[in-house]
Amino acid sequence: MRPRPVKGAADKIAAHPERVVSIGREETVDLLSRLPGTGPRHLEIGAGKGAFIQTMGQHHPTTRFIAVEKFDHAIVKLLDKLLETPLPNVLAVRADAMDLARCLPAHCIDRIYLNFSDPWPKARHAKRRLTHPDFLTLYQAWLVQGGDLVFKTDNRKFFEESICHFSQNGWSITALSLDLHADQDPENVMTEFEARFSQLGPIYRLTAKPKEAHA
Amino acid sequence: MRPRPVKGAADKIAAHPERVVSIGREETVDLLSRLPGTGPRHLEIGAGKGAFIQTMGQHHPTTRFIAVEKFDHAIVKLLDKLLETPLPNVLAVRADAMDLARCLPAHCIDRIYLNFSDPWPKARHAKRRLTHPDFLTLYQAWLVQGGDLVFKTDNRKFFEESICHFSQNGWSITALSLDLHADQDPENVMTEFEARFSQLGPIYRLTAKPKEAHA
Repeated sequence: MRPRPVKGAADKIAAHPERVVSIGREETVDLLSRLPGTGPRHLEIGAGKGAFIQTMGQHHPTTRFIAVEKFDHAIVKLLDKLLETPLPNVLAVRADAMDLARCLPAHCIDRIYLNFSDPWPKARHAKRRLTHPDFLTLYQAWLVQGGDLVFKTDNRKFFEESICHFSQNGWSITALSLDLHADQDPENVMTEFEARFSQLGPIYRLTAKPKEAHA
Repeated sequence: MRPRPVKGAADKIAAHPERVVSIGREETVDLLSRLPGTGPRHLEIGAGKGAFIQTMGQHHPTTRFIAVEKFDHAIVKLLDKLLETPLPNVLAVRADAMDLARCLPAHCIDRIYLNFSDPWPKARHAKRRLTHPDFLTLYQAWLVQGGDLVFKTDNRKFFEESICHFSQNGWSITALSLDLHADQDPENVMTEFEARFSQLGPIYRLTAKPKEAHA
């Protein structure tokens, strides 16, 4: 989806560096030091306007959440939520997923969330899809032993391809739903997108774990 | 589905041992010798009334097909088809899938088909489902290097569980459709069941290969 510009978003984000960490190209930031504590670390890539991470942060106060989003128009909405209801266990990060590679050490994340990531339907954009094997390699490096990834989407083609990628690149699919809302999982936390579009067709979800033991 | 008895089915099958090989419990039959030739061997487990294997046999005259079905009421319909239109490249086998283990050597099958297998929805019957890990071990032993398995079903829960089983038991999912008929694959050959029930919901299909190299 093309971002809709939000007037003053960049200025507002820049005015709150204590709430939103901005990572530029070539920049390296020690993200872990920005989220002290001892609870498990969960990372959402493509956090959008932040409804998911806000709810998760409230429901799981001892878990530390890192919410990464690259678009100003979206992350400024998460910033608004955090200004209204501060959550000490949620860190918002304005960055492209690939730039995170420099900012997270190996085996530091317990769970990764991909919620309704951009499906990049054109073949020439296949490498931008967040379940492309290049990204799976990154995720595998970040996850702790026993860590996992939870992926939700409403895009059938994207989900089909992703199942093949996980299966072919050393991941084990441990749970899967081809109609999440029919399954009525009481633990499911909806994103803004999910609440709006789930009437149009099934929501797909899978959980996967890297198979190889970590060094 | 409970079998509906077909009067005289058992007698008719017994009267045509040249068309239908019957394998009883504890019995061992050299199946490969019954289907001479040099083409690739494809095995359908749960062939039902045989529409799929009949069409495949006609479309691919140099491929050798083994169609296994345990219920008399179903395989007698395949026998009727073969009596009407003999197909030298199709061998019908009346057997339970587990009894095949004694009748097929290692690495002799190029492709396995599971079409709308019984989902056995009760938890206590989980081991009877044809994608249970015990069966996957059998299939892996039968397949030649580079061989694969194609699984179609309309049962969502069965397909979800099967994806997890393949992914967790050393298989690579190489292709997948969560709405086969929407994808309009011109190569898709329908079973009787598929033609009748595909209006009620999506048909799911996956292709999977064992990952390990064969000895």
